[in-house]
Amino acid sequence: MTKQMVTGIIGAGRIGKLHVQNIHRIPHMKIKAVSDISASCLQDWAASHHIEYITADYRDLLLDPDIDAVFICSPTNTHTQIIREAAEAKKHIFCEKPISFSPDETKEALAAVRKHGVKLQVGFNRRFDPHFRKIKTIVSNGEIGTPHLLKITSRDPEPANVDYVRTSGGFFIDMSIHDFDMARYIMASEVTEVYAKGAALVNPSFAELGDIDTAVITLTFANGAMGVIDNSRQAVYGYDQRVEVFGTKGSAAADNSRPTTVEVSTADVVMKDKPHFFFPERYKEAYVEEILQFAEAIQTNRETACTGDDGFQAERIARAAQQSLALGMPVTIEHTEKIVF
Amino acid sequence: MTKQMVTGIIGAGRIGKLHVQNIHRIPHMKIKAVSDISASCLQDWAASHHIEYITADYRDLLLDPDIDAVFICSPTNTHTQIIREAAEAKKHIFCEKPISFSPDETKEALAAVRKHGVKLQVGFNRRFDPHFRKIKTIVSNGEIGTPHLLKITSRDPEPANVDYVRTSGGFFIDMSIHDFDMARYIMASEVTEVYAKGAALVNPSFAELGDIDTAVITLTFANGAMGVIDNSRQAVYGYDQRVEVFGTKGSAAADNSRPTTVEVSTADVVMKDKPHFFFPERYKEAYVEEILQFAEAIQTNRETACTGDDGFQAERIARAAQQSLALGMPVTIEHTEKIVF
Amino acid sequence: MTKQMVTGIIGAGRIGKLHVQNIHRIPHMKIKAVSDISASCLQDWAASHHIEYITADYRDLLLDPDIDAVFICSPTNTHTQIIREAAEAKKHIFCEKPISFSPDETKEALAAVRKHGVKLQVGFNRRFDPHFRKIKTIVSNGEIGTPHLLKITSRDPEPANVDYVRTSGGFFIDMSIHDFDMARYIMASEVTEVYAKGAALVNPSFAELGDIDTAVITLTFANGAMGVIDNSRQAVYGYDQRVEVFGTKGSAAADNSRPTTVEVSTADVVMKDKPHFFFPERYKEAYVEEILQFAEAIQTNRETACTGDDGFQAERIARAAQQSLALGMPVTIEHTEKIVF
Amino acid sequence: MTKQMVTGIIGAGRIGKLHVQNIHRIPHMKIKAVSDISASCLQDWAASHHIEYITADYRDLLLDPDIDAVFICSPTNTHTQIIREAAEAKKHIFCEKPISFSPDETKEALAAVRKHGVKLQVGFNRRFDPHFRKIKTIVSNGEIGTPHLLKITSRDPEPANVDYVRTSGGFFIDMSIHDFDMARYIMASEVTEVYAKGAALVNPSFAELGDIDTAVITLTFANGAMGVIDNSRQAVYGYDQRVEVFGTKGSAAADNSRPTTVEVSTADVVMKDKPHFFFPERYKEAYVEEILQFAEAIQTNRETACTGDDGFQAERIARAAQQSLALGMPVTIEHTEKIVF
Repeated sequence: MTKQMVTGIIGAGRIGKLHVQNIHRIPHMKIKAVSDISASCLQDWAASHHIEYITADYRDLLLDPDIDAVFICSPTNTHTQIIREAAEAKKHIFCEKPISFSPDETKEALAAVRKHGVKLQVGFNRRFDPHFRKIKTIVSNGEIGTPHLLKITSRDPEPANVDYVRTSGGFFIDMSIHDFDMARYIMASEVTEVYAKGAALVNPSFAELGDIDTAVITLTFANGAMGVIDNSRQAVYGYDQRVEVFGTKGSAAADNSRPTTVEVSTADVVMKDKPHFFFPERYKEAYVEEILQFAEAIQTNRETACTGDDGFQAERIARAAQQSLALGMPVTIEHTEKIVF
Repeated sequence: MTKQMVTGIIGAGRIGKLHVQNIHRIPHMKIKAVSDISASCLQDWAASHHIEYITADYRDLLLDPDIDAVFICSPTNTHTQIIREAAEAKKHIFCEKPISFSPDETKEALAAVRKHGVKLQVGFNRRFDPHFRKIKTIVSNGEIGTPHLLKITSRDPEPANVDYVRTSGGFFIDMSIHDFDMARYIMASEVTEVYAKGAALVNPSFAELGDIDTAVITLTFANGAMGVIDNSRQAVYGYDQRVEVFGTKGSAAADNSRPTTVEVSTADVVMKDKPHFFFPERYKEAYVEEILQFAEAIQTNRETACTGDDGFQAERIARAAQQSLALGMPVTIEHTEKIVF
Repeated sequence: MTKQMVTGIIGAGRIGKLHVQNIHRIPHMKIKAVSDISASCLQDWAASHHIEYITADYRDLLLDPDIDAVFICSPTNTHTQIIREAAEAKKHIFCEKPISFSPDETKEALAAVRKHGVKLQVGFNRRFDPHFRKIKTIVSNGEIGTPHLLKITSRDPEPANVDYVRTSGGFFIDMSIHDFDMARYIMASEVTEVYAKGAALVNPSFAELGDIDTAVITLTFANGAMGVIDNSRQAVYGYDQRVEVFGTKGSAAADNSRPTTVEVSTADVVMKDKPHFFFPERYKEAYVEEILQFAEAIQTNRETACTGDDGFQAERIARAAQQSLALGMPVTIEHTEKIVF
Repeated sequence: MTKQMVTGIIGAGRIGKLHVQNIHRIPHMKIKAVSDISASCLQDWAASHHIEYITADYRDLLLDPDIDAVFICSPTNTHTQIIREAAEAKKHIFCEKPISFSPDETKEALAAVRKHGVKLQVGFNRRFDPHFRKIKTIVSNGEIGTPHLLKITSRDPEPANVDYVRTSGGFFIDMSIHDFDMARYIMASEVTEVYAKGAALVNPSFAELGDIDTAVITLTFANGAMGVIDNSRQAVYGYDQRVEVFGTKGSAAADNSRPTTVEVSTADVVMKDKPHFFFPERYKEAYVEEILQFAEAIQTNRETACTGDDGFQAERIARAAQQSLALGMPVTIEHTEKIVF
């Protein structure tokens, strides 16, 4: 039997709780403790999920010698501080996206990770989705030739609430960042230019916050290909997640997945299932797979499937998109120096 | 926290091992012991699957007071004997299909189950498939009106080997029995007549055993509807599992599910994924769900989702199909007396 | 320029009028005259469709030396008489299905056709549908290996009225006959046994006429394969026309065609077009193609794409299906003697 | 019977010949004459297509009092001259796209059309495609609410040859112009800003001509919505023509249409038909429908379905796209003054 990996969860919000459930399904991983600033309100949840120890102070987890790795699921503005401390405590790190709202802070945190020789994986869960992985494989194998065009559709089923959006860092760093990572992942080429159009078409309140909820983003890649991402905070029919790559030998497209294949035909309509409602359903398998691969990277001492640099580059694209939107012009991203973490 | 249900697994062949894996994924269920006549060869498997106790004698499980329920996954010809003993030992019973090769033996075993007041669920896993459950719901809700026609396609990706087939009880009781149960489940009406055509078209060796590998079976239901099942032991493109119901207000059809939604278009072809290869992939969720519902039926003292009578009736249809094939004529199934277990 | 072929239309009911429209679209074909017993009521229709001559007596067409070919679209009980006279008048013959209600009468009419050396094509329009032709080609090319199973679904959108049904010759000869022809066409093998189940589930009035409106028909082919046809007079979602062939190397399936590919996703439903409403829409291209091939067969002196024997054999299967339904047993069709027309 | 409309065809290249075939299929339209500078080489074609009169001088058609309308299918650089003369000769005009390479010339020609009170329809055939018309209807009916995003994919199966491209006016005015018109048609809102990225990825020869073959074009609409078009001169799998609109109440998407619905499943692959090869197949019905509607606009004295202004506006967007590509920046299109023709 493989030795069990002992983990601690920092932050028991929506995504932290999701990771807890998934780790429970993996026989060779164990949750020793959870920290959350609202720990006192989480006693029932902890009990019903077989969590033996819950604390308000994440440092309790960093001090626990049994814990091999921590999952940082706390608010983004706490990430880099925790990363630095966790690295120093020699804990491996799974960090939710984005690492931070500032590329400089991200760099500093990643330097600490490097210094202490721990593993860090960023929570770009979509890389582990079987549909998109197949697209990646097809492109990598050259089955569609040299890629010319990439199209990503990513639309949430319903807008986050205004309070969430206020501290989200903005549309591109909060939402489109997944697509920026997907673009780099699929194309295996860096983004060199971004042009972003956006508006608050779903909810005018977002405009009052200086934010948007709908966007069309054009990307140029170092390899000469072009890409386009379309985003919306509100697709009333469900979570719309599609990727298409077009190249010299053909195209590969991943459509939405749906709960069932059932088609009903009546006098009025022929209907099929709506897409999965949101990310917990759509990326159910991907959330387990990213944890399994994180554990494997640690156990085999390999690079993680989604490195600190991956997190950093996606943040740079998000920042360029913000600038482009503000300027009304395309923005260039330099890749002169290779940043190694 | 719900009290854990303690189980024992009788028979660690292909299906027994599958149940072991699935029970491991359910937090409120536990496997205490496994029995298999080849226990001595299964030490490594047991160790790697966290099985603490493995024995060659299933009676060790029946004698263990900790065990609440047993999963009977041994060869069909041992089922009724074990059912009777397990019932007497007050163990709840999950029994793989078919219960036996003889309706009379099945009745006798079910009488023991009834006498001792234990729960019994038959392993008709397809009832728990989300696609087919949705069909069932649509039909039950009257969304397609009164059903007139039922169509089931059920084709294996590759034939079982000749040794397996020799002791399988024959094509209808081994393979079509799943479809007979699906027919009763979806239509909520008993089958009153069966006409079966069949031949050994895939492998002539099956004909030498007096068996077939391809069939078209016409069913008539008590409610006046008609149905047709087509079966093959070898669909080279994968496990072909479809259900369609047609009624006065429309139709509902479940297509095959596939690993991904990816579609690749090249100069030669537009292609998509083949169906899932076989039952472990296709019915992955269903195998977990059937165990969850079995546990729930015990905990809430409700009838199981797939009762002994369901097993008995499907066996009667299988036997009628065999007679029909032999006679070259339709065979009637009487439902004059309600058998209550 | 190819010489124009001059035609006369006998019977201007629904199907006769459809042929008139289609012949008008073919530059190298011309309609010289139309006959119909209700000619006096059809003056306006004739004028608006550029028909110069309309008569109550089909013999006027047979006597016209300009006319090369006649389309027999009158009621079925008039077909064989007209065929015999047309053959004697040396007119080529396109005859709607079925040729007659009696295999003996059909044989006699076909003998006249043969004696006078004219061409005869039966109006099994579905042979000319691009979807089913592709299935035929795939099977012929051996792309799916040796066929084992054939499945045909053929459901009308709404029942014919009771008056029509009264003189239709019965469900099998009126409706299923298209499927019997499709079965022979696709499988390239004769049907040797038929087992038909049927009932009046849509409209009890049909039962009063001794007829049915819903059927499941099992076929056995001379090559050992099996087939099943399901029919209904009323699919409320439209004309349901599907064919699937399954063999040693795979399967080929033609789904329904629909007016557009548009898919609409809303908060309530994901919907697509219903199938085409009925045969004029579904088989729009096929109706033109069958006429083009009829003309070509005449001009190049080749066998027609759907011969008198094809009509005769389909009628034999229909009659066997009627017998099977009446007897409640499978009925054998002998193919000892090859009938050559 | 409706009076026949008499037409003359100016230019018998690929598209002129296509219109000839389609007009032949319309009973109430007639072709009296065809002009082409290579008339002497077209005698055989004319004979085989029942063209009675063919001339090298289009003015022969303008002088013929029988001719009601002309189809201008000559090279683009001849369009405005012919339009002016045809308008003066009181002929109704069907003009292929684009009207000209210069918005100023286009305006001048349209002024002549207006002055002489003749009808003009531009050959944006895709407006008449049943799939895209359904999208238009759904959007117009408000079924998907307020539109936020428009996505158009338009990829040719194979690049035009270099000689053609040299005189084509450039990628945007030659190819993307169809998509610019589709954008205005579907959204019923003018384009106010264009940002175009493009490159010669398929064939470097195009770069030598200062042209491109692949593009991603972002559009902003007067109503606040955003759109994106992706174009390629070479989709090796066939003509890729898709439109999707996303709004507050849902989305509507038209997929590619394919010759048949047949799906073949083998041990290697599950495959379906490639999209139709190119525009003659894909827009077969649309080409007939645009002519029918042109004739109807004349006969009922209504505005054509695709006016001179529609042609002019699409050309303005194409020009803006060219400027954007050259500048590397978005370009604004003013709509302060309404140009009425």
